[in-house]
Amino acid sequence: MARLTAGVDLGGTKIQTVVLSAHRVVGSSRAQTPRTGAEAVSAAIVDSIKAAIAAAGGTTASLAAVGIGSPGTIVAEAGTVSNSPNVPGFETVPVPLGPEVSRALGGVDVKLDNDVRVAVLGEWKRGAGRPYRDLLGVFVGTGVGGGLVLGGELREGRGAAGEVGHTTVKEGGRLCGCGLLGHVESYAGRARIEATARSWQQKGRKTKLFDIMRKRGRERVTSGVIAAALTRNDAVTTELIDGAVWALGLGLANVQNLLDLEAIIVGGGLGDRLGPPFVARIEKAAAPHLHVPERPPRFLPTELGDLSGAVGAAVLAGG
Amino acid sequence: MARLTAGVDLGGTKIQTVVLSAHRVVGSSRAQTPRTGAEAVSAAIVDSIKAAIAAAGGTTASLAAVGIGSPGTIVAEAGTVSNSPNVPGFETVPVPLGPEVSRALGGVDVKLDNDVRVAVLGEWKRGAGRPYRDLLGVFVGTGVGGGLVLGGELREGRGAAGEVGHTTVKEGGRLCGCGLLGHVESYAGRARIEATARSWQQKGRKTKLFDIMRKRGRERVTSGVIAAALTRNDAVTTELIDGAVWALGLGLANVQNLLDLEAIIVGGGLGDRLGPPFVARIEKAAAPHLHVPERPPRFLPTELGDLSGAVGAAVLAGG
Repeated sequence: MARLTAGVDLGGTKIQTVVLSAHRVVGSSRAQTPRTGAEAVSAAIVDSIKAAIAAAGGTTASLAAVGIGSPGTIVAEAGTVSNSPNVPGFETVPVPLGPEVSRALGGVDVKLDNDVRVAVLGEWKRGAGRPYRDLLGVFVGTGVGGGLVLGGELREGRGAAGEVGHTTVKEGGRLCGCGLLGHVESYAGRARIEATARSWQQKGRKTKLFDIMRKRGRERVTSGVIAAALTRNDAVTTELIDGAVWALGLGLANVQNLLDLEAIIVGGGLGDRLGPPFVARIEKAAAPHLHVPERPPRFLPTELGDLSGAVGAAVLAGG
Repeated sequence: MARLTAGVDLGGTKIQTVVLSAHRVVGSSRAQTPRTGAEAVSAAIVDSIKAAIAAAGGTTASLAAVGIGSPGTIVAEAGTVSNSPNVPGFETVPVPLGPEVSRALGGVDVKLDNDVRVAVLGEWKRGAGRPYRDLLGVFVGTGVGGGLVLGGELREGRGAAGEVGHTTVKEGGRLCGCGLLGHVESYAGRARIEATARSWQQKGRKTKLFDIMRKRGRERVTSGVIAAALTRNDAVTTELIDGAVWALGLGLANVQNLLDLEAIIVGGGLGDRLGPPFVARIEKAAAPHLHVPERPPRFLPTELGDLSGAVGAAVLAGG
């Protein structure tokens, strides 16, 4: 059996795992993130890796390394995760996720990094970003995350680089998930879109959004719910997505004027679901704000979709 | 005589030249930029280099290399400058400034780069930026220019990186020098401050700004005129500088949230004139917008002041 590398994208709702051989995805698995604490999450990650290896027709003996992308504060050397409010058990004190997964898999090498950064790594090395040395990956999901590749290197700053979601597009504007006002995420993040729709509904505006949500058995206005409401020309949803396009257009133009990038890749749950037409609208919204309009960046959808993070995590581990 | 390196900062109003020996400024000269065309500008640069060498007690025989920072479009390999609207003779077609200066100085090596980029290089290598690998230099003068050092390298992008002056802080806001609206430069650039003061005066607001300008025999509201009006508590000037502080605070916080820099250096004609208190006000204005407020960048005034560009040009040439 060829050498296998596993990549895990740990999220608040799901664990997505892929197994690579010779840079290609040869197996994958997906599971719900357990709600019962850090040990259960750790065990579920190990199970998902074993399932993906099995799907690839391999054995754990052929597993060379594991990469994990996680939200929260990562200390790569120690393999710990903390400050991750959406992953049960990872909210506060550091969890030694790397060592635990390693031990459960017979001592295999485990590398950890931030979930957004590994997703950018995935798109850059194996997805839409392959031709470029200077790019931004922006992930429009529950929040809006971003990561930068500059001069052919993933930029970390002092750990917090790439937060395009928390740049201001309207001072004093809509509340952001971070508590400040008028950020890109205030308008484009799924959680803020949902909260704004609820507040508008309470003020008397009619929307099909929450009917669609209930009919689908969802507790949240997912990207799929938003896409369905758009298809049915729901006025509130249309206005909210217009706002997301506006905020992303203005915020990404600011990034472009500052960094003169070759490409901007738009992904994430909502970005991937709304797809190329959404990306084209953002490109059009950014255009009037570009300082060098004759040399715009390429605006691209992701190539790996919801596997960007898992593939990037495998790349992090050498896969 | 030790090896000398000359650095020239070519501007629309003046030519500032320094001569370095063993990384120290050992001579300098300053002249008005001729209004009579490219040949005259070229000759004035050569004269200023000779004058700075003479001031250092040296001879042109000891001149090892020359660096020139110029506004406009630079083709470094060819040593040409074009699209520089404020330098007479350099407005449109490429002027072979590098080869001309080289020939006049007996074939010495001449390097050219963008004026803002060399100023950042100067502050980074010989000024306030020495301890850092990740910084932004923002030059608040007639316009607002900026340059980035990321991971210990001056970032060029595709030639236009660093344009923090042309990021938006208020969509649909005040007119910028570039023709778009609501940029940092719209509020913080000296030319836009002057234009806004004129327009407010025409609408009936009283200001001492233009009296001070005339009494000083100036045709423009220079940084010195602005500083004097502030000292005299001129309400219009105070409001305009409050606006500059606000725009720089918000725009620089956006940069910080995106790049997680170690330091932001504020210089330029107006920035240097208003000095450390102005920089401290910008820092305070940025603070509420920082995504990681517990780890802000250092906000620093320049160390080299109006020599940043000339020293940086000399550094470019190996000095």
